[in-house]
Amino acid sequence: MVTAIASNAERSTRRTFSQTTGLTMLRIEDIQTPAVLIDLDKVEANLKRAQDYADSHSLPLRPHIKTHKLPRFAKRQIELGAQGITCQKISEAEVMADHGITDIFLPYNILGQAKLERLVALARRTQLRVTADSVQTIDGLSEAFEKAGLALEVLVECDTGMGRCGVPDHETLVTLARHIDASPALTFSGIMTYPAAGQLDKCAQWLERAVNVLTESGLPPKIVSNGGTPDFWSAHVVEAATEHRPGTYIYLDRYQVAAGVGTLEDCALTVLATVVSHPTPDRAVIDAGSKALTSDTLGMDGFGHVVGIEGAAVKSLSEEHGVLTLSGSAALEIGQRIEIIPNHACVVSNLFDSVYLVSNGEIVAKEPVAARGKVE
Amino acid sequence: MVTAIASNAERSTRRTFSQTTGLTMLRIEDIQTPAVLIDLDKVEANLKRAQDYADSHSLPLRPHIKTHKLPRFAKRQIELGAQGITCQKISEAEVMADHGITDIFLPYNILGQAKLERLVALARRTQLRVTADSVQTIDGLSEAFEKAGLALEVLVECDTGMGRCGVPDHETLVTLARHIDASPALTFSGIMTYPAAGQLDKCAQWLERAVNVLTESGLPPKIVSNGGTPDFWSAHVVEAATEHRPGTYIYLDRYQVAAGVGTLEDCALTVLATVVSHPTPDRAVIDAGSKALTSDTLGMDGFGHVVGIEGAAVKSLSEEHGVLTLSGSAALEIGQRIEIIPNHACVVSNLFDSVYLVSNGEIVAKEPVAARGKVE
Repeated sequence: MVTAIASNAERSTRRTFSQTTGLTMLRIEDIQTPAVLIDLDKVEANLKRAQDYADSHSLPLRPHIKTHKLPRFAKRQIELGAQGITCQKISEAEVMADHGITDIFLPYNILGQAKLERLVALARRTQLRVTADSVQTIDGLSEAFEKAGLALEVLVECDTGMGRCGVPDHETLVTLARHIDASPALTFSGIMTYPAAGQLDKCAQWLERAVNVLTESGLPPKIVSNGGTPDFWSAHVVEAATEHRPGTYIYLDRYQVAAGVGTLEDCALTVLATVVSHPTPDRAVIDAGSKALTSDTLGMDGFGHVVGIEGAAVKSLSEEHGVLTLSGSAALEIGQRIEIIPNHACVVSNLFDSVYLVSNGEIVAKEPVAARGKVE
Repeated sequence: MVTAIASNAERSTRRTFSQTTGLTMLRIEDIQTPAVLIDLDKVEANLKRAQDYADSHSLPLRPHIKTHKLPRFAKRQIELGAQGITCQKISEAEVMADHGITDIFLPYNILGQAKLERLVALARRTQLRVTADSVQTIDGLSEAFEKAGLALEVLVECDTGMGRCGVPDHETLVTLARHIDASPALTFSGIMTYPAAGQLDKCAQWLERAVNVLTESGLPPKIVSNGGTPDFWSAHVVEAATEHRPGTYIYLDRYQVAAGVGTLEDCALTVLATVVSHPTPDRAVIDAGSKALTSDTLGMDGFGHVVGIEGAAVKSLSEEHGVLTLSGSAALEIGQRIEIIPNHACVVSNLFDSVYLVSNGEIVAKEPVAARGKVE
């Protein structure tokens, strides 16, 4: 039954899901929990709202597919105007290329013989760019692509405040840009950053100075790639940016709502769970634990927002249990189903082999999460 | 190449892995990261040590397979003396039954038509017991099994201090035991608990009183099932227990070492990662983030133990990056591979489609994690 629905929905390339009547529909009340529900109407609204904003500021989007890991949505993001996609792993990019995506940015240091060979193979079938933040990465890329007789565009990753990867200063940036420029098979194409949340002004200054320094050095960056959803609606203040890579904006989640990116009603991904135990009046237990919601708190209290039940909170998780505390008038029944908006949607996508696509309160497809578990 | 190795190792039913010479071996230095390595020699030592302890106290083991999710190890646990296994989900139990396991305990409230039908199907092909902590669960089980013309043994889950599922007091316990006893198709078989770590004395008292109260009520429990690895070496103090369900003892992890269950050298599961960035002298970044190590801290600082590199700590994770801080003489090179002992091994098993089995420093098999991602 599920398969029939899925293939029908697959045929509807545009959003005609809710019009697929006449099918034996799988109802939400019939699916087994825990399960991930994706509201297609909210997805579409979130994508369009973001694309409209980007268009109004002439800021091209290059969405990060790590949030959804679904070729269907990558294609839809491009249909709506995105100039390509971003993947974090070669294995994710391979899945997306298999599904016809032709412009992929891989902002990661690719190291090691096996991965470099896969990168070469990927570059043979799609427009590809990568980043580097060290001589070692650059030299590996250069050797592999020279041997393959292929060219590769490389951007330098910059640390504008996140404290993760990236060159820490402009001097190192210029050194690496020159090293790329001098490397056989490689072209220096620009710079990339993932900014710390709430530090967009600092990021803007860092990148502006970077552009100036590179230009003065005779290596003006063609691409200045910025990213992130938490400060998405201020992305335009980073005037140097030539593209933006939002990820979570497609689904949103409890963290993004706390950051002010959207409302709880905008959140497109929920975890459907069943109340399996209610040992005391103020404690209930659901069948969604860290294997469904993950332990990500992102600095917040609790492990998700309980939709529509004021006074209910997800206090703690073990692998297969979520412990809810109930206060005030909050009431639950054993066997009752509830929806949880997770703290972090991206990591939830990685835990489920498939998700249910929903429109107008009806399931329209059970979709395999094609790029789930792609760790390499 | 991997497949050939796997199928060869599959044929060696006992631990002759390290003797499989003459093969084109996949070397650890050739596998792509991040990857999970399982040291078979440590697994065997951990299992035997625990079984010896259990035997010396005449305490049967019923290991929880959630830690490894591998039929191979479930079978080995039984070969060494375990009387059956424990699964937390029907889908996990189905996988184990598919691989020939015939005695399964499912200590979970099973609710809903679809799951009850699967439970009935499972009971037709394996010795099965479940738990309940509410009238609703009991009535659902009774109806489904009466309709199927099958009998089912049910234990009552007891909250001895964990604050998760389970009846909170002995009065409720007796009420539910009587309800099971009076239900068509169901047999009251005993009680089950998962104790809070460090509260084994409290747990022992709770269960002892439970046995007395039930016996006085004419419902003496046949089974008293206790669980957990953190206090495993004290399991015998719970004198009422007729079986123990350890899970993590097979691999151990950073949390279990902190709890004193074993040493870092005993930890059988590690995540192999590559240093992909080293932007500052005191910061390096590996390609294992929360998608490989999970965000579980279990109350500890950091996200794993870096094997063999004093002064290196896993300070923070994002999905595809692990940020290491380096102090003292700690030194890393870009491209270098390191092993991390995760905070919590069980959740790591759930993130990888397959793991590499290692013996004497050599890979002997790439094993699919058959019960990974079994959420329902």
